[in-house]
Amino acid sequence: MPYVMVQIPNPPAPALPAPTRSVPTSADVARLAGVSRATVSYVLNNARAVRISEPTRRRVREAARELGYVPHAAARSLRAGHSRMVLMPAPAFPVGPLYSRFINELQAALCLLDYTVVQYGTVGAHDDEAARAWAELRPVAVLVPGAGLGPQGVEVLKRSGARAVVTLGPETVEGAHALLMDHDVVGYSAGAHLFDTGRRRIGVVVPGEAGLDTFSAPRLAGVRAAVRGTDATVVELPLAHEEEAAAGLAARWRELGLDAVFTYNDEYAMLLMRALQDAGIRIPEETAVVGADDLMLGRLLRPRLSTVRLELPSGQELADLVDRAVREPGAAPEAHKVLGASVIRRDSS
Amino acid sequence: MPYVMVQIPNPPAPALPAPTRSVPTSADVARLAGVSRATVSYVLNNARAVRISEPTRRRVREAARELGYVPHAAARSLRAGHSRMVLMPAPAFPVGPLYSRFINELQAALCLLDYTVVQYGTVGAHDDEAARAWAELRPVAVLVPGAGLGPQGVEVLKRSGARAVVTLGPETVEGAHALLMDHDVVGYSAGAHLFDTGRRRIGVVVPGEAGLDTFSAPRLAGVRAAVRGTDATVVELPLAHEEEAAAGLAARWRELGLDAVFTYNDEYAMLLMRALQDAGIRIPEETAVVGADDLMLGRLLRPRLSTVRLELPSGQELADLVDRAVREPGAAPEAHKVLGASVIRRDSS
Repeated sequence: MPYVMVQIPNPPAPALPAPTRSVPTSADVARLAGVSRATVSYVLNNARAVRISEPTRRRVREAARELGYVPHAAARSLRAGHSRMVLMPAPAFPVGPLYSRFINELQAALCLLDYTVVQYGTVGAHDDEAARAWAELRPVAVLVPGAGLGPQGVEVLKRSGARAVVTLGPETVEGAHALLMDHDVVGYSAGAHLFDTGRRRIGVVVPGEAGLDTFSAPRLAGVRAAVRGTDATVVELPLAHEEEAAAGLAARWRELGLDAVFTYNDEYAMLLMRALQDAGIRIPEETAVVGADDLMLGRLLRPRLSTVRLELPSGQELADLVDRAVREPGAAPEAHKVLGASVIRRDSS
Repeated sequence: MPYVMVQIPNPPAPALPAPTRSVPTSADVARLAGVSRATVSYVLNNARAVRISEPTRRRVREAARELGYVPHAAARSLRAGHSRMVLMPAPAFPVGPLYSRFINELQAALCLLDYTVVQYGTVGAHDDEAARAWAELRPVAVLVPGAGLGPQGVEVLKRSGARAVVTLGPETVEGAHALLMDHDVVGYSAGAHLFDTGRRRIGVVVPGEAGLDTFSAPRLAGVRAAVRGTDATVVELPLAHEEEAAAGLAARWRELGLDAVFTYNDEYAMLLMRALQDAGIRIPEETAVVGADDLMLGRLLRPRLSTVRLELPSGQELADLVDRAVREPGAAPEAHKVLGASVIRRDSS
């Protein structure tokens, strides 16, 4: 049953009024409720500081509902000089479940602080060009995952009224707050575990997917750092996320003479473990395998997969940092190291 | 190495000017470039219709760069009466790789048509309340994945100037264009395949995760429809995505007397297949297993997993529908059936 795009006959809709003319304004609401426009604005924007009686509030809300009026965020932000919008460019790398949970938590925490979180598709735009596109929306804060934003981009955002720019990446960027996600610790943990359990020829999978080098390069460096000054050696293993590529690597496994492999993450571990097992390599006797991310699938593999669990800060902590930065835009940028890692040893290592 | 939030000393930043006062305006750019504000607006908003010499354009762009000025999308949309913003609420269900690829493609296609796509976090808000929050941003079009938006929400959005509201879900909503994603076909394909290969007692996994019932209920109904009027029976199997739950189900598998199971998707297939194999059930001899989504992991399982591949429309098709709807806001809502499904038979069925 292949996909077909079928038009389904639909009862004709009642003719719509011309779209822009019919948009109700706060003046219409004021007229219907018999109050001033200022009162409408105070009530609908929940301005607590202004004393307005409950019956008046109710009348305004009913008039707004009847007319289908909602306040215009843009107009409000033009009046206020800034918005409550926190802009978050969609990350350029494939997002795992751990990271999505973190983002959801962050959004929830920011909503409770009365911010509106919008994620912005960055398709096609890069670096400081992207920053200009974001600046057009006049966000009060911008959270940038991954590398890419430079000091110029930060400057563009600040000049356009962003009170806080926060990067979540491997390095600090001048002028921005930084949550440093240093993936060295992930590789370091894996490397130290493999060394401590007697392994001396350690392969490290470096995935071929675009956008992952921000994470894979420091993970590789972390493994190297963990065995520096010892008799252990580290071999870089580029690998595409495809069965054929994994089978090819498995076919020359015994030539490589590796007794351990850190596979970048659990999904690559599953891919490579299958290929190694199909090629007759015994795990963990001949080769120990360690993934990362602690996905459910690792527990379903046989042997059960050892993995590195990543520890991110809570979304609440980041939300608080954003809010503090918005309220004190003149304060010096803060930098926090926020990535932790610990090994969960199962049967594959 | 557990996570620690460490403040890293940062060189103090040069004191920032008070944030709102310093925001440069188009008047500043006009003054520096020696042109009118209208000219600045034409140049920076890429208005092609207006004849402005290349040296003037260059002077305006240089002045804007020097001052760090970017146009204000909200001000522009207030002038124009509408924005170029396509708002897409983040879906309330866990998003798989197929769906994310579709969304990325759609974003890219809309960007080429000069729309700005923003994804909106919907945490906490529901249904028509959510529609009011979206309306505040005055999007020119709204794409709503999943169920939830009602006719009232559509009305609120249209009254606020949205020219097109498009739902991607199981049913049409009055006043909105609909891309009907009817997951019946997924279950129907799996059920027909299992029946055709001689299976007569078919279990259907219904996942416990929140937000998935929009998909799981029609998939179950599809399996039932495929065997209606035959001697085959269908048994609903609620299952949480946890090892213990799967082991519990596997322990009473022989009592259930099932000779086949459609597992909702490939991830549940992996979970249940492991539990069945650990309990000594032979696959496919005793029980055939069929997943859905055609993930890579299905090919890595042993036996290789049979699966239902879903076929979504291209992002380009949807982008064209949105653009057409924006340009003809008075046209009758269109409804298209857009979900296709086909079985990929491997070794588990």
